[in-house]
Amino acid sequence: MAIRKHSLARVYQQLEPGPVVLLTTTSKGRPNVMTMSWHMMVEFEPPLVACVVSEANFSFAAVRSTGEAVIAIPTLGLADKVVKVGNCSGSNNDKFKRFGLTPLAARQVRPPLIKEWFCNLECRVKDMSMVKGYNLFILEVVKAWIDPAQKVPKPFVTADTNPLSSTARP
Amino acid sequence: MAIRKHSLARVYQQLEPGPVVLLTTTSKGRPNVMTMSWHMMVEFEPPLVACVVSEANFSFAAVRSTGEAVIAIPTLGLADKVVKVGNCSGSNNDKFKRFGLTPLAARQVRPPLIKEWFCNLECRVKDMSMVKGYNLFILEVVKAWIDPAQKVPKPFVTADTNPLSSTARP
Repeated sequence: MAIRKHSLARVYQQLEPGPVVLLTTTSKGRPNVMTMSWHMMVEFEPPLVACVVSEANFSFAAVRSTGEAVIAIPTLGLADKVVKVGNCSGSNNDKFKRFGLTPLAARQVRPPLIKEWFCNLECRVKDMSMVKGYNLFILEVVKAWIDPAQKVPKPFVTADTNPLSSTARP
Repeated sequence: MAIRKHSLARVYQQLEPGPVVLLTTTSKGRPNVMTMSWHMMVEFEPPLVACVVSEANFSFAAVRSTGEAVIAIPTLGLADKVVKVGNCSGSNNDKFKRFGLTPLAARQVRPPLIKEWFCNLECRVKDMSMVKGYNLFILEVVKAWIDPAQKVPKPFVTADTNPLSSTARP
């Protein structure tokens, strides 16, 4: 047998999803943003997204108390900013200013869109019943925005070009 | 503003994760396999994985009744098989035989590993409280296998080479 046992502590490296995203929130009128890679689709339409926001993240309280967030999907050219946003805390940083992100007013929620990002999804928390056990939120996407000038996002293969995606929809 | 409204019905195409995986199950002694792309990490260790298995899938009843499954992570060279596995039902197919997948006995669960796959994760269902509302299972990975001859999986960038992954672990 060519396979060998793998460390359970490193399992996450094999399963983390392709599109690493940013999550914007607003708390007491102040916008913040974090990097997130633990998320998945749950329903096609209305689109439901599950995501894990750790209690250790400054954004956790904002999502839980306001029930709103924006998922912003970057292109590969923004990878460096995605890493930097993920490696500091909103508790003592204005990350929009620090990393040159341009906030745009969303239509249905208070957290801002990010102008430079390929795709922005306005979300409302739909279900918090698994927050206590797993920090797992179910979000409903209530409005979606895309930048047609960046039609093919670079960090991952889109359904248009990815034969695998055709298998996802039952 | 360069962005435009995006169809809510197509939101899933922007968020589906990179590593499309196979999920093996065993029901009444018969192994089956489906293609899955709606999954995410929930906890590092013990590793917890959330996944959505639609009631429309033949595998749904097997996961729910046995509480066991194996997540098998392919390399890019297997993409064609991943698509084909996803486009037919186990209700009237022996997919292992039809697509030349070699089942290997797992150590802690009855569903088989897939020999040709880069990484295999033996899983037990830990929480079914969101199955009723969302078809969402929380799985615990109890044993993990990796093929060292295929160290760099091709369908996605590993944490070893992907700067984005460094942001995931709090």
